[in-house]
This record gives sequence, structure tokens and C-alpha cells, in this order.
Amino acid sequence: MPSPILSLLPQTLDVIQDPHQVAKLSKDYYHFSPILTPQLDDKVAELVVRPSTEAEVLQVAKACVTTKTPLTVRGAGTGNYGQCIPLEGGVILDLSKLNQVKWVKPGIACVQAGAKLAAIDKITREQGWEIRMAPSTYRTATIGGFIGGGSGGIGSITYGQLADRGNLTAVRVVTMENEPHILELRGDQVQKVNHAYGTNGIITELEIPLGPAYPWAEVIVTFNDFMTAARFGYTLGEADGIIKKLISIHAWPIPSYFAALQDVLPERQAAALLMIAESSLESFNELVKEFGGTVTYQKTAEQAKKGAALAEFTWNHTTLHARNVDPSLTYLQTLFPYDTALKLVEHMYQHFGDEVMMHLEFFRVHGQVCPAALQLMRYTTEERLNEIIRYHETQGAFIANPHTYILEDGGRKQINETQVAFKAKVDPYGLLNPGKMRGWLERTQS
Amino acid sequence: MPSPILSLLPQTLDVIQDPHQVAKLSKDYYHFSPILTPQLDDKVAELVVRPSTEAEVLQVAKACVTTKTPLTVRGAGTGNYGQCIPLEGGVILDLSKLNQVKWVKPGIACVQAGAKLAAIDKITREQGWEIRMAPSTYRTATIGGFIGGGSGGIGSITYGQLADRGNLTAVRVVTMENEPHILELRGDQVQKVNHAYGTNGIITELEIPLGPAYPWAEVIVTFNDFMTAARFGYTLGEADGIIKKLISIHAWPIPSYFAALQDVLPERQAAALLMIAESSLESFNELVKEFGGTVTYQKTAEQAKKGAALAEFTWNHTTLHARNVDPSLTYLQTLFPYDTALKLVEHMYQHFGDEVMMHLEFFRVHGQVCPAALQLMRYTTEERLNEIIRYHETQGAFIANPHTYILEDGGRKQINETQVAFKAKVDPYGLLNPGKMRGWLERTQS
Repeated sequence: MPSPILSLLPQTLDVIQDPHQVAKLSKDYYHFSPILTPQLDDKVAELVVRPSTEAEVLQVAKACVTTKTPLTVRGAGTGNYGQCIPLEGGVILDLSKLNQVKWVKPGIACVQAGAKLAAIDKITREQGWEIRMAPSTYRTATIGGFIGGGSGGIGSITYGQLADRGNLTAVRVVTMENEPHILELRGDQVQKVNHAYGTNGIITELEIPLGPAYPWAEVIVTFNDFMTAARFGYTLGEADGIIKKLISIHAWPIPSYFAALQDVLPERQAAALLMIAESSLESFNELVKEFGGTVTYQKTAEQAKKGAALAEFTWNHTTLHARNVDPSLTYLQTLFPYDTALKLVEHMYQHFGDEVMMHLEFFRVHGQVCPAALQLMRYTTEERLNEIIRYHETQGAFIANPHTYILEDGGRKQINETQVAFKAKVDPYGLLNPGKMRGWLERTQS
Repeated sequence: MPSPILSLLPQTLDVIQDPHQVAKLSKDYYHFSPILTPQLDDKVAELVVRPSTEAEVLQVAKACVTTKTPLTVRGAGTGNYGQCIPLEGGVILDLSKLNQVKWVKPGIACVQAGAKLAAIDKITREQGWEIRMAPSTYRTATIGGFIGGGSGGIGSITYGQLADRGNLTAVRVVTMENEPHILELRGDQVQKVNHAYGTNGIITELEIPLGPAYPWAEVIVTFNDFMTAARFGYTLGEADGIIKKLISIHAWPIPSYFAALQDVLPERQAAALLMIAESSLESFNELVKEFGGTVTYQKTAEQAKKGAALAEFTWNHTTLHARNVDPSLTYLQTLFPYDTALKLVEHMYQHFGDEVMMHLEFFRVHGQVCPAALQLMRYTTEERLNEIIRYHETQGAFIANPHTYILEDGGRKQINETQVAFKAKVDPYGLLNPGKMRGWLERTQS
């Protein structure tokens, strides 16, 4: 069944029609969720295109508008909520070939959307700078995908979240109007397309702020009990004089799922997986001593270049490793309020026991260090999952539900009128990643 | 009256005996305080020595111990509480010739105590690093003096205070025992001599952590009213995505005292004096817009190399400039609790009106952004000063009293037993900067 769009695409464009390839490039890591799996399993695009230039992106956009074909943008497909899954078929716009680092200045870089995070760092580090924050899929994820579908990660203990003012400087966006063209959004204007799943514009290029590239040591500290590990993490998070990039705290049995680290993760111990500036290690060790922790693993930045990065066991890679051992596991995403006593964390840890295993990631929320949790959950039924979510919410925790592909039903909870209005302007036919933005669905239904 | 110590000093040592010179080198900026002025005006050393090597420091220490001569260490004498004023005469050990930067690595440097802060930065910046925090006397102050008598400053909005774990890595200390020798203190051990006014050891060398040398733009933003300026400052302080080094907020009429800046400080406006990473300026300008501020002055980092640094109008240089206009003015040092609504700040601002003019500096306290204040005060009597201090304390503000030369009566409020015990060990005759440490005075009296 040849698509009518094919004849409108430029001859030079890399087009993939092989059904196996297309099926593969229609997926992300939604299978972490037993709720999303049946909803998304049969969603597949007609074809995938891989433009190498912004001009080709414009031509693809024009062809889609002409034929009213849905277009879903894809980076590396490392998302977990079906952000880049084509609900209504059509074209997948895979931006992985649009991957140049255009320039680097002190504290800022200009990159194309398909550049991989690790590849960007390789270039910016030559000048002493690096990406401020990254997901645990750092090695494969693209910057455009991270901005479009991510929210924060390794580095957020210093810089907060991607949505915070200052963490994205400018974007170039290709529109889906009758005559697609390029818009440049700067300053607060970037929020029109930031974390919008590519529903209201095709981000082709970004100016992103950079942070200093400290030599980061990787450290594991183990503790006899989880709450001591959690309090250690909080104190480290608030220690302004100790430079860190990652504070990831795991209750037992989560460390037992990290196959490659079994030698350094003693039975029944809680573990802290950390990235600490080498220049802060001496002070850091005093903090470890104060909390009675044991350093079981330490690599210098130079040593850390070899082997698996410790960060690849944190954030949502924790879930990945656990599911490699036990595929019935799923997870939650929870933000706990500012409370250095960690009362609500302790309550949930005690209340759910082994059913919801505690995994904390510390990060900054509007200037304050808060614990986020990506708890591992022993899944039974959707009813029980929802009951657990409701219990968290009634007790005062905020759930960013990872079991929905609807933009607003995840972490945002409300319709972003600015993003909907921007979609109305740049995607009047509603072709971009259809079915994901509730605000648009409600607008077009009414 | 030739001192008996003279014959014991090495021939090569730079010794100053000229009474005018000695009198000048016996002073700091205690005259900011009308309470300290009469207490310290007549304090003067017998002679000043300026060693160029650690070996010479050891020889001076030995000579003082042999003759039981008091020894008071001095950096640049930019303190404000008589930290380096010799209460019992004796020798001033001026370390300004011990000023080498021994090495620089990523995020850390080793420097001699008499190195000036600006001179250190000049060298470390070649590698992309700079001192984490500095007082407004940055151009003349020494690192040893800052550690011995300072507490934080420009940069503390990111790194907290000097006393925070991680902000001082190691020190070398010359003792005053019968056979003076060198101790190296690392990790938490550095707290034995950190902010001890040189009462319990002579710091000769330090390993200090460094921060990234962003290109810092200098910016003044003005506001119609002080509380809007203060709230702008708080929001900027908590904006994790916007990199800044200084947030200094001044109620009218304080800006009227800044003679060199009159063209950019409109009548009756509150002013924010700021240092912002150039790479964050675009996002920063959106915040200015949100609060209705007006940017009246902006220099790039390159432009800022010429002319007076904006930071030289902040922290306690604000007091200096105000006293140049009106020498009857004095000041307070206040820490307000974490409260983004700034209720207590607003109360004090309203309550005292023109008598206590509000000047805020935002900094981090154990991970949270808090406003400190160095209010300018129209001085009348000591009773009224104490009344104002008491009122602040009863309302919940913390006063670090700048009107005392006693170590514990300033910001600390309690005796640091570790520091007293360390003095007993390394200065058994109590010769180092006598009369400043209450814990020692009480110990020797009992």
C-alpha cells in the first residue's frame, strides 16, 4: 500500500518503508507500563523519514500538510509514555540525522535537535562545559527528544528542571501551516513548545545553556537502613559547598537488581549512587562518616570513562534493570514536598513495604532540594495501581503519572492554554502527534 | 624602646618599626562601628614583621614563644570588627608577602595565606576557575584573612558560607608551642581554625575549592518600591536555571550614597545590583519583565574589567560608600529566616523606616536561599543600637553583631569547644591574638 505522500517527498530523503523497521521506529519504552502496553502495542506509522537538513524537514512538513498526513517527531525513542508513538499512523519524522553541534560558547551551545546528549558533551567538554542535565538514557537520547518529552534528570540537583526559566534559551521550530516555515522562539517564548511531545511544532535546532564540566567521580555508599541513606541524600543535596550531579537512593531489594554491581552492593543494604566533583570528595567523605555509610565503590572521572556509567543505574534506568530481572515490575513517579525530616517518604516506605520499593532521586524545585521518587511497584491490577496513586495524593505527595500518553494527564495536570493556542497557529490541521494533547482534543471536539 | 624580640628575628626578615607604619598596620575597618571605635583606637603593636617564607613564619613564632610576646596575624586589614587589631601589643605578623599560588587543578587550588583574592582569580581563571566566594574587599583582601575573619559574600548565593563543609579543603598551620612546627589539617579538621581570627594557629597555606569562571555580566535593575525589588531578588535566588553570583537589594535612600552610579540610579527607586552569567541574561531579562523592573545599567564581563566593579557597592562596601557621605552611619548584620513572602523583612522595613535602611544580600543557608541584611543605621546611642538589635531578635531575626571584637559574640553566639581545645594544644601560652576568644578567656580565668 504505497502512501500518496511518497511522490511529494524529495528524492534525496532517507525514507524507510520496510515494515519491521517502521514498526521498530514506531515504538518507545512504553512497555514499562502495563497500562500503556495494550493501548499502544498496535500503533504503527506508514513510513519513517530521516531528514539530514532543515530544508528537508520543511519539505516533509509541506508534503504532510498537502496530503493531511499525521506527522510524529521522534528522537531516539527512549521515552516511557509513548510520547513519540504515532496513534494515527502517518509519517514518523526521525531527526537522528539532524545532529550537528553548530557552535559552543562559554555556558551555551547551539545544537540540532537530533544530536545525542553524549555526543554534544564530547564536543562542549573540550571547552570545559557540558549539558546541565540528562536522563539516564544519556548515551542514546537526543536533545530534541529530551526537551520534547523529558523533564529533568542527572544534574537536576543543581539546575532544577527543564521547564525552569533559564534551562532552555532558544528553539527553531518548523510549522505545519499551508506553507511551512521556520519560527525562532527565544526567552519565555520557548515554553510554547517545551515538553509538548512535538504536538505543536517541529523543533529542529536549540540553544541550550551549559554547566561547568567538573571531573565527576562515581561513588556508591551503602547504609544499614534506608531512612539513614535517604537522610544522607537530603543532607548531601543541601550541602552547598559539595558539588554533586546525582543523588540516587535505593531501598533494598532494588540494589539486588543491578547485576553488574553485585560485588559492591552488599545484601540487605540501602545504596546511594552518586556523582561527586573530584574536588569535593574529601569533604564528601566527612559527610559519609557522619552518617555511618560505607564507600563500596569509587571511580575517578578518568576511570569512569571505562565500563558502565553509574548513572545508568539511576532515574528510570533503575526500572529498566529491575524489569530485566522481573518483567512484572512497573513504577511510579512521585514528588515529595520539601521536608528534611522525610516524614511522608518514611510513611510510604513503611506503609507499602515490599509492594512499592523506594527509589529516591534528589533534585531542586524552585530553589529547594526535594526528593522525587521513581518507586518500583509489584503490579497486580490497574485498580490497585490507581489505589496506590490515590493514596499518595491524599497523603500530600504529587504523582506525575507515567501510565498515560496524554500530555496533560502525566505531570502537568492542567491544560496549557499557551501551548494549545500555539498549536492552533502552527498546526491548524492538527497533524502533529495527534491524540496526545488533551487541550487540543477538547478544543476540536467542542 | 627596642623590643627584646628583635635580636631573635632572622636578619633577612622584613621588620617595620616606624611608628606611623606600625600604627597603620595595627588597624582594620573597625571604625564602621561607633561602639568599637573608642575600644580599639589606642591599640597598637610594637612592631610588624612581613615574612616571605613559611620558614620565616616559624622563626617569628619561635621568637614570640621564647619572649612570650603576643602575635597577631594580619592579611590586608579589611575586617570590620577589629579581628586583626593587637589588643595587647606585641608583634603583627603581616602575611601579605606570603602570596604564592602554588598550584591549580580543576575545581581546586593551593595558595599561600597572603595571596590576594583578585590575584588568585587572575591565575585560576586561565584554567576556567575562580574563587567560589569573596567579600566586597575582593581586590585587596587576602585569602588567609578572609578565611580567618570572614564568613561569605559574593558567590554565597551559590556556595553558601565559608563555614559550610566543602568550602575549605585543607590548611597548613604554624603552631606556637615551645618548638613551633607545621600541622596540616584536612577535611572537617579545618574547622578547628576556620573563622577563628588567628587565635589558635597561624594559617600559612590553604587548599581552596574553586567554582566555574562564568563570564559575569554586571546589571542594575531598579524598581518603584523596595518590596518588589526584594521579591525579585528572592525569585532570582531560587531560579535554579539562572546562574548568578550576586543579588544585592537596596532600599532608597541607599542608592543615593553610590556617587559613581548616580546616572543609573533614579531618585526614590529601589535598586538591585547583580552579577549574572552572560549565558543566563536572556532568561534573566524575562524575570525582570515579570517584576516590572528597569535595567538601567548593564556591562558584559569584558566591559566590566574596566572601571569600578559593581560588587564594590555591595555587602559591606555599601556601608563604606554610605559612610563616605555620612560618617555618622553604622550598620547591622541580620539573617532573616527562610520565607519567600519576606514578612519579617517587610515588617522591619516598615517598623524602623529611615532609621534602619534596608540592604539585603541573598545567599544560601544549608541549601535554602535566605535574605541576609546589612542594614544602614542612623546611629544615636549605644542603648538605641542595642534596643534595635533586641527587637530584631525577639521578632525572629538572627543578629550577627558587628559591634564586638569577641569571636563568639559576633555571629557564633556560643563557644566552640573544639577551637578552644585546639588553642590549648597549639598556643599553650595564649599568645595568638589575645583577648578575642571568649572560650579561652573563660578557661584561663577559671
